[in-house]
Amino acid sequence: MIYTKGNIEDLDIITKLKPINSVTGIKPANLIGTINNEGQTNLAVFSSIVHLGSKPALLGFISRPQTAEVGHTFRNIQENGYYTINHIQPDFVKNAHYTSAKFDSKISEFKRCNLSEEYNGDFKAPFVKESTFKMGMKFKEAIDIKLNGTILVIGEIEHLIFPDTAMVDNDIDLEVTNSVGISGLNSYYSLSKIEKYPYAEVTEVPEF
Amino acid sequence: MIYTKGNIEDLDIITKLKPINSVTGIKPANLIGTINNEGQTNLAVFSSIVHLGSKPALLGFISRPQTAEVGHTFRNIQENGYYTINHIQPDFVKNAHYTSAKFDSKISEFKRCNLSEEYNGDFKAPFVKESTFKMGMKFKEAIDIKLNGTILVIGEIEHLIFPDTAMVDNDIDLEVTNSVGISGLNSYYSLSKIEKYPYAEVTEVPEF
Repeated sequence: MIYTKGNIEDLDIITKLKPINSVTGIKPANLIGTINNEGQTNLAVFSSIVHLGSKPALLGFISRPQTAEVGHTFRNIQENGYYTINHIQPDFVKNAHYTSAKFDSKISEFKRCNLSEEYNGDFKAPFVKESTFKMGMKFKEAIDIKLNGTILVIGEIEHLIFPDTAMVDNDIDLEVTNSVGISGLNSYYSLSKIEKYPYAEVTEVPEF
Repeated sequence: MIYTKGNIEDLDIITKLKPINSVTGIKPANLIGTINNEGQTNLAVFSSIVHLGSKPALLGFISRPQTAEVGHTFRNIQENGYYTINHIQPDFVKNAHYTSAKFDSKISEFKRCNLSEEYNGDFKAPFVKESTFKMGMKFKEAIDIKLNGTILVIGEIEHLIFPDTAMVDNDIDLEVTNSVGISGLNSYYSLSKIEKYPYAEVTEVPEF
């Protein structure tokens, strides 16, 4: 199947939307937990979390253009400066998926989708108790992407919580953590490790 | 295992680097192909490609801080404005992985890692012939992330090429495309679809 720019633009927005959401390949499946200053919590699935750097440990995610219905996560982050990122795992994929419905801001997706708020010491934002791999994030910067009105939201990892058994050969094994991936808007995939190669040094590249 | 900010910063940079590269969960495994104005091609593995929007169809990726050794991809894109994104598939994972070695800019990773340049009409940048899922991208904007010197490079999809069989129920099936994921810097995973849910409408959310 070959599309060129002309016919990408011509495609109906709905028929176009789903394939374009899938073209990058597999995406990490995470829930972002937030709370506003009135104590109202919010939980939403995000597939756009991206590693920006390790020193400092920075992660970004893409927030869609803000409307009354969309953007509760980013608004809460602006309000109090903290949020959590929680890996989605197979036993609560369905609960996690339905957090993407456009609930009124007065409804907590934790409660509506039957996932449990968990608080960690005095860290402000709620973690997802059911997830075994979670991070407490401090908001650092929001960068406007003027081309389409989206926002790159950047935070620093302040807490990192995962099972001891997940650290295999000094790396996190995503089969052990039972983490899942998303394609497009609503397909979920499990992961099986196929290969691990050494860090690629020029002097050690095999002949092909 | 629980890390808090204090001990994340204390960890040795090498021991720290790999886990922090893995914390987002699974990442899409893609090769970016470029060419400079002298006809020198470059190919490099990227795990940071992120969907920014569907109308227009925009994708971003993170380019590390530019040095003599690092950043050939972004330099070529700045020079001629075009690049390709190609899904990595199991039969050339090893070749793809070793494009990450810091080869001199005069060495083409296509040749050194035995992957084939493919040109599509008058589109300037080289595709990877071995990949069955590939995109021709037009550079739109580079946004500096001042927190750590990285760059968000944004492009628009001009060509989209994938197997007819990959479109299942109006969505791209990543098992059919045989696309793989990356964890951290050097672990590769295959994908198995576990669930597909409808687009989540508030009125259709099940009781949990």
